[in-house]
Amino acid sequence: MDIRSSALLTDFYQLAMLQGYLERGMEDTAVFECFVRTMPPPRGFFMAAGLAQLLEYLENVRFTPAELDWVANSGRFSRSFVDYLERFRFAGDVQAMPEGTVFFANEPIVRITAPLPQAQFIETRLVNLLHYQTLIASKAARCVLAAAGKPVIDFGLRRSHGAEAGLLAARAGYLAGFAGSATVMAEPCFEVPVFGTMAHSFVQAHQTERHAFEHFAEAQPDNVVLLLDTYDTQRGAETVVKLAPGLRDKGITIKGVRLDSGDPVEQSRRVRRILDDGGLGDVQITASGNLDEDAIQRLVAAQAPVDLFAVGTRLATSADAPYLDCVYKLQDYAGRPTRKRSEGKETWPGAKQVHRRYDQQGRIEHDVVTTAADTQEGTPLIRPVMESGKRLEASDSLDHIRGRATAELATLPDEIRRLSPGATISVRISAELRNLARVADARDSSFCHPRHL
Amino acid sequence: MDIRSSALLTDFYQLAMLQGYLERGMEDTAVFECFVRTMPPPRGFFMAAGLAQLLEYLENVRFTPAELDWVANSGRFSRSFVDYLERFRFAGDVQAMPEGTVFFANEPIVRITAPLPQAQFIETRLVNLLHYQTLIASKAARCVLAAAGKPVIDFGLRRSHGAEAGLLAARAGYLAGFAGSATVMAEPCFEVPVFGTMAHSFVQAHQTERHAFEHFAEAQPDNVVLLLDTYDTQRGAETVVKLAPGLRDKGITIKGVRLDSGDPVEQSRRVRRILDDGGLGDVQITASGNLDEDAIQRLVAAQAPVDLFAVGTRLATSADAPYLDCVYKLQDYAGRPTRKRSEGKETWPGAKQVHRRYDQQGRIEHDVVTTAADTQEGTPLIRPVMESGKRLEASDSLDHIRGRATAELATLPDEIRRLSPGATISVRISAELRNLARVADARDSSFCHPRHL
Repeated sequence: MDIRSSALLTDFYQLAMLQGYLERGMEDTAVFECFVRTMPPPRGFFMAAGLAQLLEYLENVRFTPAELDWVANSGRFSRSFVDYLERFRFAGDVQAMPEGTVFFANEPIVRITAPLPQAQFIETRLVNLLHYQTLIASKAARCVLAAAGKPVIDFGLRRSHGAEAGLLAARAGYLAGFAGSATVMAEPCFEVPVFGTMAHSFVQAHQTERHAFEHFAEAQPDNVVLLLDTYDTQRGAETVVKLAPGLRDKGITIKGVRLDSGDPVEQSRRVRRILDDGGLGDVQITASGNLDEDAIQRLVAAQAPVDLFAVGTRLATSADAPYLDCVYKLQDYAGRPTRKRSEGKETWPGAKQVHRRYDQQGRIEHDVVTTAADTQEGTPLIRPVMESGKRLEASDSLDHIRGRATAELATLPDEIRRLSPGATISVRISAELRNLARVADARDSSFCHPRHL
Repeated sequence: MDIRSSALLTDFYQLAMLQGYLERGMEDTAVFECFVRTMPPPRGFFMAAGLAQLLEYLENVRFTPAELDWVANSGRFSRSFVDYLERFRFAGDVQAMPEGTVFFANEPIVRITAPLPQAQFIETRLVNLLHYQTLIASKAARCVLAAAGKPVIDFGLRRSHGAEAGLLAARAGYLAGFAGSATVMAEPCFEVPVFGTMAHSFVQAHQTERHAFEHFAEAQPDNVVLLLDTYDTQRGAETVVKLAPGLRDKGITIKGVRLDSGDPVEQSRRVRRILDDGGLGDVQITASGNLDEDAIQRLVAAQAPVDLFAVGTRLATSADAPYLDCVYKLQDYAGRPTRKRSEGKETWPGAKQVHRRYDQQGRIEHDVVTTAADTQEGTPLIRPVMESGKRLEASDSLDHIRGRATAELATLPDEIRRLSPGATISVRISAELRNLARVADARDSSFCHPRHL
């Protein structure tokens, strides 16, 4: 069973509410929007990702016979509701920021316009898909900026949160500008370039480190990257120097070495010196082990001779901010704009658009969030991608999205690109949107104890 | 495609190393162990989880024709290696701590004994499966202890990291003592009891909150839990009081209310008073919204009148510690104990056992990690669960594991049960194990520049 497209991968309340809506014929058009409420403290921007998987889900979500049986046998739902679920398809419209777009707090990234039960039902998986890849792409983009042009690769599968997380982290990282991933499946699924070296166990399984290096070089002659720190990094580097001439005679070039423990600034300098002194100036140094954007920034600032950064756990779990305050909220039902006013969780009502204004250098000046109908200066960021349940065009290739992401990062002001804590873009709420909120609030208040109840 | 059992859900280096092992006939028996290197600062214990999914993976992992094609067409592997992969099955032994067992840093929780290529290949997915559920069960157990007997449920699916994370968080939470989950699929997959109420959108989609409550009660008469904070929590509670008599006349009892924003201590007291004054003393209060063990502990300490805690994002992402330093290391190859000595990442060599000693009240006194062959006082925690790729017995039912987890939590000293920061159990390394490490180190040093190279 592929749980990724299962209709039961949802919250129970979606089914409860759906039955309620259907009993009362509440199938008018609803507008929901997905956005992130707040920027986690160290971050300055988000990068939108996950739309391709969301559209795939919307095209494919349906209840299988086994799932319908479960709903019917749970004793909590009516026969007519089960019949409805059997026919359930998503046939609504989707408007969205393209993947790779840079965005900020309170800006909708996806808008769903569909009959209320459909728009409601998809909430859980929609957030689940958009949240995770956006989380990882946003973190990965920071690593890319920190690396200042040097390649970064994803090593995060083992400590990512489950199968789908590992696979999608590889996609989100590549999308944001990573050079590739160690996750094999990311290549057949998404054409993400795949990288890999050796583990400590490979060295340990041999009688000596030298045996292990020699053996690995002969087994993978086109991909000789040797892990130095199983016993002693410096001695590992010396062994590489001793082995190189013999391997060269066999036509094998040592491509690189990997450092996975200790202080990477000091270790990389020491190893660089040993390699250079041994005539191995072309052998590249990969650093791995607890890296994230902060560690990369320190390595770059120290001009540590690291050629490639491998980021694992801290990318795939977004360790400094393992979740975003990402929500999906009803903005309009049956032509009536609405918002929640829960303490500290107020939202803006109605279908919205984000207009972005740039300065003369092409850097983002500020964004304006306004009503969908309002015309504002600047570039609108939300565009139609699906109508009546059908995609308007084939999804962008991942390389195309990656190109967009690179271009988007170039529009960030320098202070944000330097990852200065707290540096972000000002998001303005238009007068039109504030007016709409006042109208919605006044109506909700007058309705609060209406005569006819 | 079910990515959960795909053989390509692995790191590229596993394939590279495997080909190397096979070319040299390195198929002797290897012993690997999985353990967590360090305890994240606020935590005092871990809870083992994920073994059932690991055993399922080990029984089922194989390369499909499409996957074999990918390996063959990648141009990076030999034909004979692809033939080997076609026949690849896991036929090794597994010894493990049962799920629900409490454990500490540096204690092996799973030991794999198998021909080196098999034991190596499964590393990535083994860590991926054991790490995530152990992470979540450990966090969930803290929530259960904090709740001091009141029920806790999982609401985490939408912000969990993908499909599998959401589903397995429901399992891991229930295993650790949660009352259930909002994730529908957790019931058909794992028989986890499923709970759910309503969303703010349900209230907003109606003309008034009162309409929404009345309608929900009629649609779900056996499960009337009303969400109070869409507009104003206090007014929401007053509306519930006004509606109750009319619903009672229709035979409908309001079971509970849910608070999702604001200060839950203050809000729950205010709402409790309104409900009690309105004759609704039996209506239970559920608190949700940014809860974790710390928030629950504060609510319990303040004697806030909350009857049920719903923990979402912070459980499913283990927000305070989104990963564990969980590793899988080669301990012995071809009868030769080995360990890595990387700076700050040293491991203990050889197959190991953990012996636990209890005081007269049945509380854990300390653990001893020693060689597998060593006899020590105390209860050994690692037991055989799979031999030659076959399970020794059917997996425990989840309710059985949940019972074990509860019993295990009762063996923790009070200070740990109170979640006092830094309170943990002392893990001792036996003299036998220290000796073995000295022997392995001496041998690795003497081999370092051996004559025959």
